[in-house]
Amino acid sequence: MMTYPWPDVGTPIDAISTPMPVIDEDRLSANIIRAQSYLDDQGKAFRPHIKTHKIPAVARQQLEAGAIGINCQKVSEAEVFADAGFDDILITYNILGAAKLARLKALNERVARLSVVADSETTIAGLAATFDVSRPLAVLVECDTGGKRCGVQSPETAVALAEKIAAAPGLVFKGILTYPAPAGAETVEKFLSETMELLAGKGIDCPIRSSGGSPDFYAAHLVPSATEHRAGTYVYNDRSMVRAGHCNIDDLAMHVLATVVSKPTADRAVLDSGSKALTSDLLGFSDYGLIEGYEGAKIVSLSEEHAVVDLSGCSSRLEIGDVVKVVPNHTCVVSNLFDRMVFHRNGIVTRVEKIAARGTVW
Amino acid sequence: MMTYPWPDVGTPIDAISTPMPVIDEDRLSANIIRAQSYLDDQGKAFRPHIKTHKIPAVARQQLEAGAIGINCQKVSEAEVFADAGFDDILITYNILGAAKLARLKALNERVARLSVVADSETTIAGLAATFDVSRPLAVLVECDTGGKRCGVQSPETAVALAEKIAAAPGLVFKGILTYPAPAGAETVEKFLSETMELLAGKGIDCPIRSSGGSPDFYAAHLVPSATEHRAGTYVYNDRSMVRAGHCNIDDLAMHVLATVVSKPTADRAVLDSGSKALTSDLLGFSDYGLIEGYEGAKIVSLSEEHAVVDLSGCSSRLEIGDVVKVVPNHTCVVSNLFDRMVFHRNGIVTRVEKIAARGTVW
Repeated sequence: MMTYPWPDVGTPIDAISTPMPVIDEDRLSANIIRAQSYLDDQGKAFRPHIKTHKIPAVARQQLEAGAIGINCQKVSEAEVFADAGFDDILITYNILGAAKLARLKALNERVARLSVVADSETTIAGLAATFDVSRPLAVLVECDTGGKRCGVQSPETAVALAEKIAAAPGLVFKGILTYPAPAGAETVEKFLSETMELLAGKGIDCPIRSSGGSPDFYAAHLVPSATEHRAGTYVYNDRSMVRAGHCNIDDLAMHVLATVVSKPTADRAVLDSGSKALTSDLLGFSDYGLIEGYEGAKIVSLSEEHAVVDLSGCSSRLEIGDVVKVVPNHTCVVSNLFDRMVFHRNGIVTRVEKIAARGTVW
Repeated sequence: MMTYPWPDVGTPIDAISTPMPVIDEDRLSANIIRAQSYLDDQGKAFRPHIKTHKIPAVARQQLEAGAIGINCQKVSEAEVFADAGFDDILITYNILGAAKLARLKALNERVARLSVVADSETTIAGLAATFDVSRPLAVLVECDTGGKRCGVQSPETAVALAEKIAAAPGLVFKGILTYPAPAGAETVEKFLSETMELLAGKGIDCPIRSSGGSPDFYAAHLVPSATEHRAGTYVYNDRSMVRAGHCNIDDLAMHVLATVVSKPTADRAVLDSGSKALTSDLLGFSDYGLIEGYEGAKIVSLSEEHAVVDLSGCSSRLEIGDVVKVVPNHTCVVSNLFDRMVFHRNGIVTRVEKIAARGTVW
C-alpha cells in the first residue's frame, strides 16, 4: 500500500503535485495581525471562525495575536478544538436532536467557556432539557438583522427568547448575536441597541453582543453596540474578499497550484483543478477563480477534475505542463476538500498541517 | 478524545445525525444491474467510473454484475483501487510531471491491465520517457467529439498521436476515447469511424473505442463504433439524472439527510445541509437540490453549514426539528465531502463503507 507523500519541509512548492492549495506564512501572519489590530483599536474582542482553516495550529496563531476564543459551526468541530486544548468556544448554531445534545453536554463538561446560539423556542427547549444547574450552558440569541438566514425577526422576539433562556436552570443567557453584521450597519446597530434597551428594562444582563462577517470586517466599528466580532475568511483571504475591498491581491494567503494538462485549441487550456479542488462556489462571479499572472484568462467551467480556461482574452502564453497559481473564489470550501494543508514561505514548504476538523460530520 | 460514532448496522437512518448522505442498497443494486444489462444487450463492455462512489466494495458490485474493469480520474485513486485488488484500471487523464509519472510507473508494475489517455505530444513524450519495453503502458488517444474539454480536434491529429504512441518502445497504442459521447451521437460516430479508417490505412490496430457519460447512457447504442462505455453517476443517480431522463425519482439511491434547524419566518426554513454537504453545484438548476415530499419548497441559497429554503410555494408544513431527505443536484461531489458512506435497506443501516479514494490528491 502506497501512502501519499506530503512534501517535506524545505521542498519548493513548484515540486508539489497538483492540484494543491498552499498557504503563504507571511501573508497569513500579516492577515491575522492586521485584523486583530483593527479590533483592538476599536476596543472590541475578536473571535475568529475556524471554519476557514479547521486547523488548531492556525487558531493558536489567532489566539496568540489576541483573539479571546474561537467560533465553530458544528459540535464535531468544537470537539476537535477541545481535544487540542481550546477553552473558549462559541458554536454559532442551533443544536437540535438527542445525539447532538448529548455530545454538546459532554463537551460542556470539559470546555471552560462553551456557548451556543438559539433562535427558537424549540432549540431552547432542547437545551433546557439537556443542561442543569450543576454545569449550565451559556446561550446567545441569534438575531436576523438583514442577513435572511437564521435569527429572530425582532428585538421583542429576541427578548422573549432571552427570558426563556434566563428562566431555564441549566442555561445562562449571555447575549445576542448576528451575522452578517456590518452590511447595513445602521439597521444592525438599531436592532442590537433596541434589544439591549428592552433587556435592560427587564433587568436582564446582556454582556455579549456579537457581530460577524469577513467581507466588511473593517466596518465593524459602525456597530458600536457590538462587543465582539467573528470572522473566518480574513485569515487566508480569497477573490471575493478582494472584490469586497477587504484586502489586496498581495494579502491572498491561499493559492491553489494547478497544472495545464491539455490545450486542445489555441484558445482553450485545461487545468487539473476541478470542482473537487476549487468547488463550484461562484459567490457572484461568472467564473471559477483567477489565474495569477494570466490576465484575461477565464476559468469558464469546471468538471470534477478539470477546469476549462478560455484564453481568447489573454495575451500571455499558457502551455501544457505549466504550473499556475489559482486564486479561489472562496477559500473556506477549498480547505474542506483536503486532508492536509501545505504552508510555505517564499515558495519553500514550512509545515504540513492536518486539517483536523475536516470531515467531522455533526 | 472523542471519535465520531458512525451508525451501527441495524440503526434506523432516522437516528443518524445530520447532515449525512445515505445510499439505498436496493436502488444501488438495481441501478448497477439495469445499466449493465443494457450494455450487455448492446454487446458493449462496461467500465464504471469510480469517481462517484470512491469505494472498492461498490466497484466490486459493479464488476460482479459484469463490468470489465474500472475507470479512475487520478493516479492516487487508481492506487487505492490497486491496493484493493483491482487489476483492470483505465485512468482517463493526461498524466504529467515527474512525480506523477513515477507513481504511474510503480502502479503499472502491480496492475495487470493499466491504461491511460493522452491528447498531446507533451503528454506522450512524458509517458514515453518513463516506460520501457520491459513493462509497457497502454495508452488511448482522447478525442474531443464536441464536449469541448480535453481531446484532439480531428481524426488526423488522433492518428498522428497514435503513431507517436506506437513508435515509443515503452508504450502500446490501445485505442481512442471520448467524453461525453452519445450527445450528438452522429458526430461522435463519425469521429470514431473516420479515425479507425485512417488507422487501418496505416496498419495500426485500434481494439478499444471508449465512449463515456451517464446522462445519456442509454443512448450508447447510437455510437456503434464504440466497444466500451464508461459512466459513474448512474450508480447512485441524482437530480440531474432525473432531468436528463436517465432515471426516475424511484431510482435515486442517494439522499442527503438534513434537519430543519431554524424557521425564522413562515416562508423561510433553514436546513443543516450547506455547501459543505451538498456542494454548490447547480448543473443548470436554479436551486440546490430537491426536498423529497415537499413539493414547491426551494433551496434558494447555501452557506457552508446552512441551506435556506423558500417555503412560499410549498403547501406542506416544515417545522424545526423535522428531518428531510434532500436529492442532491450532483451525487459525485457529495461523496467527495464525507469520509464514510452509510448504506441502508428500507431505512435500516446495512453497512458503513470508508470512501477510500476521497482525499487522495494526485
